[in-house]
Formats: sequence, structure tokens, C-alpha cells
Amino acid sequence: MKIVFIGAGNLATQLSLALQSAGHKISQIYSRTETSARELSDTLKTEYTTQIEQVRPDADLYLFSVKDTVLPELIRHMPRNNGIWAHTAGSMPMNIFKTATEKYGVFYPLQTFSKHLDVTFSHIPIYIEGSDRNVTADLVALGKDLSDNVQVISSEQRKFLHLAAVFACNFTNYMYTIAADLLEEHDLSFTDLLPLIDETAAKIHKMPPVEAQTGPAIRYDRNVIEKHLDLLNHENTREIYELLSKNIHKYYHKNK
Amino acid sequence: MKIVFIGAGNLATQLSLALQSAGHKISQIYSRTETSARELSDTLKTEYTTQIEQVRPDADLYLFSVKDTVLPELIRHMPRNNGIWAHTAGSMPMNIFKTATEKYGVFYPLQTFSKHLDVTFSHIPIYIEGSDRNVTADLVALGKDLSDNVQVISSEQRKFLHLAAVFACNFTNYMYTIAADLLEEHDLSFTDLLPLIDETAAKIHKMPPVEAQTGPAIRYDRNVIEKHLDLLNHENTREIYELLSKNIHKYYHKNK
Repeated sequence: MKIVFIGAGNLATQLSLALQSAGHKISQIYSRTETSARELSDTLKTEYTTQIEQVRPDADLYLFSVKDTVLPELIRHMPRNNGIWAHTAGSMPMNIFKTATEKYGVFYPLQTFSKHLDVTFSHIPIYIEGSDRNVTADLVALGKDLSDNVQVISSEQRKFLHLAAVFACNFTNYMYTIAADLLEEHDLSFTDLLPLIDETAAKIHKMPPVEAQTGPAIRYDRNVIEKHLDLLNHENTREIYELLSKNIHKYYHKNK
Repeated sequence: MKIVFIGAGNLATQLSLALQSAGHKISQIYSRTETSARELSDTLKTEYTTQIEQVRPDADLYLFSVKDTVLPELIRHMPRNNGIWAHTAGSMPMNIFKTATEKYGVFYPLQTFSKHLDVTFSHIPIYIEGSDRNVTADLVALGKDLSDNVQVISSEQRKFLHLAAVFACNFTNYMYTIAADLLEEHDLSFTDLLPLIDETAAKIHKMPPVEAQTGPAIRYDRNVIEKHLDLLNHENTREIYELLSKNIHKYYHKNK
């Protein structure tokens, strides 16, 4: 497929690299930010523009990979053409395209992406939605060039996947950040936490997370909890510790 | 070494199995709960007791692996002997043993343990503290039979390691639980989140977590955040989402 990327952020970068490797032609990158546009087009050896009005009309697929808040405006200013327009967002309904073009859909890979950390797409779930059967089939076929886990789901289901991903990835990474900062403040090495972090992720391949819970909150070891709250000298972190401990305790109390 | 375990919970189970495999003799298990005591002693093919007064006097090492709240009382009732007494807790000072016996210390493996999920100790950090040089040396030697990462640290440092571990493991696993429940409520498969969870953990081997953060909170995409809050129909989960999103935003705003 001949593909234009609207956006040059983390997801656009990794997805365009993967699609190019799979043999597709990335014919243009649009980004409002010239640095980002140039950087990605350099990597892909393709052209770029910072003017949405100058997006090429001859692609088979336009992949919008931008912040949700700017997507409506970009669609409004996008030159009309006969390609499929699809976005890669978790929480945007497919119908955002409805009044702007005829063939449209969603291509949502469930993963965390960083510009400079290449990911292997082969087992990443890719969720597809299409405005008609042909669009769905085209997007599914494209997904299958990257991954063995391509599924057609509704905008409604996709919203819950995205929400679950925020907990499982974004909030989890923030927990890692708090831990790293605590250790750094006390001249301890974050590297020593990696076996624990790895095992925590590995465990839930073998048992549901509800059974994998350990630690003072589930034992409701007030002794430890109080000591930990005393050690936390940032108000924000203490608030997080308290809220999560309270909820873990309630969760298991309720379920028993 | 001839070792008695005081406790038969998750940590005691995995640690006693590992020490037995490494060639040490586990000569007795004490647990208040007969079922736990019997289960672990059956696995290890050793004897057990539910009476702390009946703990054998002839071991080289007594490993206390119990809830912090019951540790002082157990120490008080423990028959005097010439072995080393050590606990495996993150937040207990070593001096808890000071008035009860002469040779004492700490043997703290930084990992999450479940009774029925065997772990490989080889890269798990084990933190040692000893009442004198000989005790420290004995406990370090024991640690090295299990792991290539054995360190001598103070009670003070150990407290912060334990606190960091609560964030990196216990709270992280709770994030997985919330995600799993959300997907289950909407007939979606938790298995599809595993590549994302694995990548989130793998990423921080290559970059510090502060650089790995992605998602609506760091972009401060109010559009997505508001939609997510609307989707969360449990008050508790909504409170967690709001607090963590607010803090992620503040964290990156402050650091820029």
C-alpha cells in the first residue's frame, strides 16, 4: 500500500518503520512540527510537509496518528481524496471521519511506543474497524503484515482496551518512576529492582493478577503501612500510597 | 547449614525450597497454622511444629519469615539457643533481636513470592545485615549459594528498598488487576494486554522509567482523560485514575 502518515510522534514513528519494513511505501509524512516531520522523513527516506493542505492526494491510506485534541481540526483541513482515512487512537470513535470522507476506519495497535526504541510488532494486538467491508478487509490485511493478532472490534470495545492500557502501562510505568526516585534519593540502585519488576510482569502470564497480589496492603500489615507513610516525605507520593493501599485492602476484603 | 524456618508463607516456602536445593538442611518448620506448617514440611520432607516453644535448639540458623506484627511476640517466646536468628523482612530493623539473643541478622531477598510459583534466585538481590562480622559473613555466604547479587546494607537503606518494591511490584500488580477487571466486564481478553505489560517492563531495562512514560496523562490530553473518567463506573477506580493522572502531569510539568 502507498501510505501517508499524518503525525510523526512515538506511534507514527514505530508504525511507519514497521510498515516500511513489511514492504509498504510510506510516501509522505505530515507533522505540524518541522523537526519531527524532518526527523521521521529522514529515517524513512521519504518526503514531508508541515502544511496539511499539501498532503499528497494519491495514497491508498492516510494514517492519522496525532493527539486526540487536534484530530478533528486536521480532518477538517485535509484535502479530499479517494484513499482510506484511518486513525490509530484508542479513545476516538471511528465516526469522527464520517462527514469528511467516504472510506475510513481505525488501526489501533495496543502497545507503548517511544520514538527511539524499536518494537517488534509480531505479537502486538492490532484492533481494526472499517466503514465498510472492503475497508475492514484492507486494514485487516495490512495488520496481518505486521502481527499475528489482528481483531475487528467496535469503537466502544476499543475505548475499554485503551482505558485498561492506561492502568496496565502508563500508571504502571509511573509506579516504576516513583520507585526509581525513592531509590535515587537514598543512593540505592534502581537496577536492583529489575528482577522484581520482571517477575511481577511474568507472574501474570501464569496466574490472574488478582491471585498474584503480595505485600503489606493485601496482608493489611498496618505496622509496615504506617512505617512506609512516615518514610514518604512527598505529600503526593504519600497520597498515592494511602489510596492504593486502602483500595487493595478493600478489594480483597470485599472479594472474600 | 542446618536451618529452622519460623513461618510457612510465600517467602518461607520459596526460600526454604531454594536453600534445600542448594544443599542446606531444613530441619524444622514452625507455623502457627497447622495446614501451612504441614504443607511446607511435606514438600521439604522435614518435621514441623505449631508451638514456638518446641522449636529445635540445634540449628545453625533460625529464619523468621512472618508478618511484621507477629515477629516481636514470636521472638519473645522462642527458646534460647546458640544459632543465628535472622528475619527476611524489608521494614523491620535488625535490632528487633537485640535483647533476645546474641547472634542475629537480616536476610532479605527482594522479590515477590507465591507459594505455588517457583522462582529462580540466581539474580534476585539479597540484602544482608549481621550483628557482628562473623554473622554477616555467614549470611553473605548463604546468600551467595542462591544468588550472584548479595549486598550488605543497613536497616535504614533496606526500608527504602522495601518501600520502592511496594510501588514497583504490589501497586503495579494492582494496576494489572484493575485492567483485568475492566476488560472482563466488557468481554475483552486480558491476554491481549500481556505484550503491552511485558514491553512496559522491558522498556525500563533500556531507559529510565521517567523517559519511558507515554499515554494521555503525560500528553495531558484532557479529551481522553475526561472520556476515561466517564467510562469508570466504580468510584474507587475513578479516584485512582484522577490522582495518578494529576500527579503524572504535575511530575512532568515540574521537571520541565
